[in-house]
Amino acid sequence: MISKFYLNKGITKKSLHGRPWIYISEINEYDGDYENGDIVEVYDSKGIFIGKGYINDRSKITIRILTKDIEEEINENFFREKLHMAWNYRKKVIDTSSCRFVFGEADFLPGLTIDKFEDYYVIQISTLGMDKYRDVIVKLLVEDFGAKGVYERSDITTREIEGLEQKKGFLTEPFDTMVQIIENGVKYYVDIENGQKTGFFLDQKENRKAIHRICKDADVLDCFTHTGSFALNAGIAGAKSVLGIDVSQHAVDFARKNAELNGLSDTVKFECHNAFDILADWSKEGKEFDVVILDPPAFTKSRDTIKGAKRGYKEINLRGLKMVKKGGYLITCSCSHYMSQELLSETIMDAAKDAKRQLRQVEFRTQSCDHPILWGSDESYYLKFYVFQVV
Amino acid sequence: MISKFYLNKGITKKSLHGRPWIYISEINEYDGDYENGDIVEVYDSKGIFIGKGYINDRSKITIRILTKDIEEEINENFFREKLHMAWNYRKKVIDTSSCRFVFGEADFLPGLTIDKFEDYYVIQISTLGMDKYRDVIVKLLVEDFGAKGVYERSDITTREIEGLEQKKGFLTEPFDTMVQIIENGVKYYVDIENGQKTGFFLDQKENRKAIHRICKDADVLDCFTHTGSFALNAGIAGAKSVLGIDVSQHAVDFARKNAELNGLSDTVKFECHNAFDILADWSKEGKEFDVVILDPPAFTKSRDTIKGAKRGYKEINLRGLKMVKKGGYLITCSCSHYMSQELLSETIMDAAKDAKRQLRQVEFRTQSCDHPILWGSDESYYLKFYVFQVV
Repeated sequence: MISKFYLNKGITKKSLHGRPWIYISEINEYDGDYENGDIVEVYDSKGIFIGKGYINDRSKITIRILTKDIEEEINENFFREKLHMAWNYRKKVIDTSSCRFVFGEADFLPGLTIDKFEDYYVIQISTLGMDKYRDVIVKLLVEDFGAKGVYERSDITTREIEGLEQKKGFLTEPFDTMVQIIENGVKYYVDIENGQKTGFFLDQKENRKAIHRICKDADVLDCFTHTGSFALNAGIAGAKSVLGIDVSQHAVDFARKNAELNGLSDTVKFECHNAFDILADWSKEGKEFDVVILDPPAFTKSRDTIKGAKRGYKEINLRGLKMVKKGGYLITCSCSHYMSQELLSETIMDAAKDAKRQLRQVEFRTQSCDHPILWGSDESYYLKFYVFQVV
Repeated sequence: MISKFYLNKGITKKSLHGRPWIYISEINEYDGDYENGDIVEVYDSKGIFIGKGYINDRSKITIRILTKDIEEEINENFFREKLHMAWNYRKKVIDTSSCRFVFGEADFLPGLTIDKFEDYYVIQISTLGMDKYRDVIVKLLVEDFGAKGVYERSDITTREIEGLEQKKGFLTEPFDTMVQIIENGVKYYVDIENGQKTGFFLDQKENRKAIHRICKDADVLDCFTHTGSFALNAGIAGAKSVLGIDVSQHAVDFARKNAELNGLSDTVKFECHNAFDILADWSKEGKEFDVVILDPPAFTKSRDTIKGAKRGYKEINLRGLKMVKKGGYLITCSCSHYMSQELLSETIMDAAKDAKRQLRQVEFRTQSCDHPILWGSDESYYLKFYVFQVV
């Protein structure tokens, strides 16, 4: 028999409103045996049904809700329905040639990420409860969505919290893991097997597009360029010159290959530098650009390191700001959930004060709409993206 | 001799950072005679120059800074430079066939708004200090920017704070004030003389475009449609049916004319209703739409009426939400500066809880980029725009 969990007084369907996570501290008692990974039922203190989800008592996030319908079984049909819902949404809102196909909690599939690169799918499973459905998911991707190949990139440290090993490899017949995609008219090689995360950061798709107008005829500096995506968007938009920098020589080599693929090697160049150091040096030399782009990695992945992260964001924005010509543009973002929009805007304002530069906001954006933000599931909001004119 | 104003201790260039307003409470003393409307100089308590601007001691916002350069004279040349700067920015970031040409403080011209509708310009002057430069501004619009006609729409109550009368009329030879514009592929008549504000709300240009994908093949309800702009964008994007409602019969008649102009009268209909009432009625009848758009007028224009406004926004969002089919979309916004992003999001969340509907955020946007947000000049940020899927 399915095990039943009762929450503390005061935690109700309404108070949870959409939050799909039940913390260990919110559970009052339970009835019936369970094993970690099992589907259990959740009730409030008055016995009113809240939802059904999978449990793992090793994690502070102990239960993740999958459905609010007591009749709904968690089986192949459940996954089929959820995947089709995710797909139909994306067909409605975005170019789906390559996109995030499933965004965990925000697609009501906690613990599961699926990225689609043309006909190849990369899946990442972060929880024990979801780990049990790997085969069903792969089957559906092949049968219902015509996947030519599925690769797993569950090589993430957070799996250890769940008592799982990191995992990586083919889930279908092997295929060439160097996939070519096209986004905003720019072609990329995506290294599904060895690239960062699932191989490519799809979450900036619409933001990359948003820089086109500003980069036309401009001298552009793209910091933390990774495999060159913002730099190449600047290039294809008609920038006069683009310099992308990254601390990893491997990333720089990869970005150069992408520039070649687009016939942009003459205008879009890449160099291997630590952004913090080189910006300070160039600033002293009086080097300036029309557009400076700052797309750093998350400086914080938890609440505990926010303070240090704030320092990092302030410093990089300060250095970046100093490199922008008067009347030029600063494009700056943070992909850390814990660096909230409010905190980030304070930090940027601090940097502007120190740099004695005034900011005029052209646009504010978030992650692309194939990474929807589920209200109530706060962690699903993470990317903040600003375009400023420096006046 | 130019009069010099000294601020209270602690108010410095750095603490003001970009704020172009000096409040009466921040002024410690002054030296030299002045008349309201004069250009005066502002210094901090240590005598460090902060800026030069015009004064009106009838207003709590006593001085509005025009320049931080002590050498810069406020003359025709000053206005020429600022107008060209404003124009060059817009040419860079947006379609300029019709656009906001000058956005007050954010274009370093406090008290001045200029909207461009094709070759016709509508100006609005809200302060005594700016009122003195009307002729210079008109001259420049004609000579430097080829204005075929300039019309003044300074019929705003806030002029009374400045001791000015409301004002309205031609500033050049008369012309036909019913101007035709095109935006996102939609044609509109704009009634420069008798329309609301300057005749058309340009600030939603990019947001109107952002609804196209979602409205294709959908049944759409557009509340507070005014002259039909969101409704017509839905129509041109291929909506199955669109119903626009407005409490003003004049607006409804005008919107119908706009639908006709676009050959959309068969799919885009307009009716005269109070949105609050009719949504409650329709909700009882079980009426539903794929997309509901809520673009209400500002429910608050000051800090004092926020509480009432919050109730208004909650109520309209609650009623709107109830009309959205499961899996459909809610598009909702606030154009009130005082209804901050944080406050608005809280309010929408409250409405969602009461409506027992969960929200998945597709996109968050602000006012169009021809209404830039000057950091430090907080009032320049006013429009918040959300697209949600109701799941």
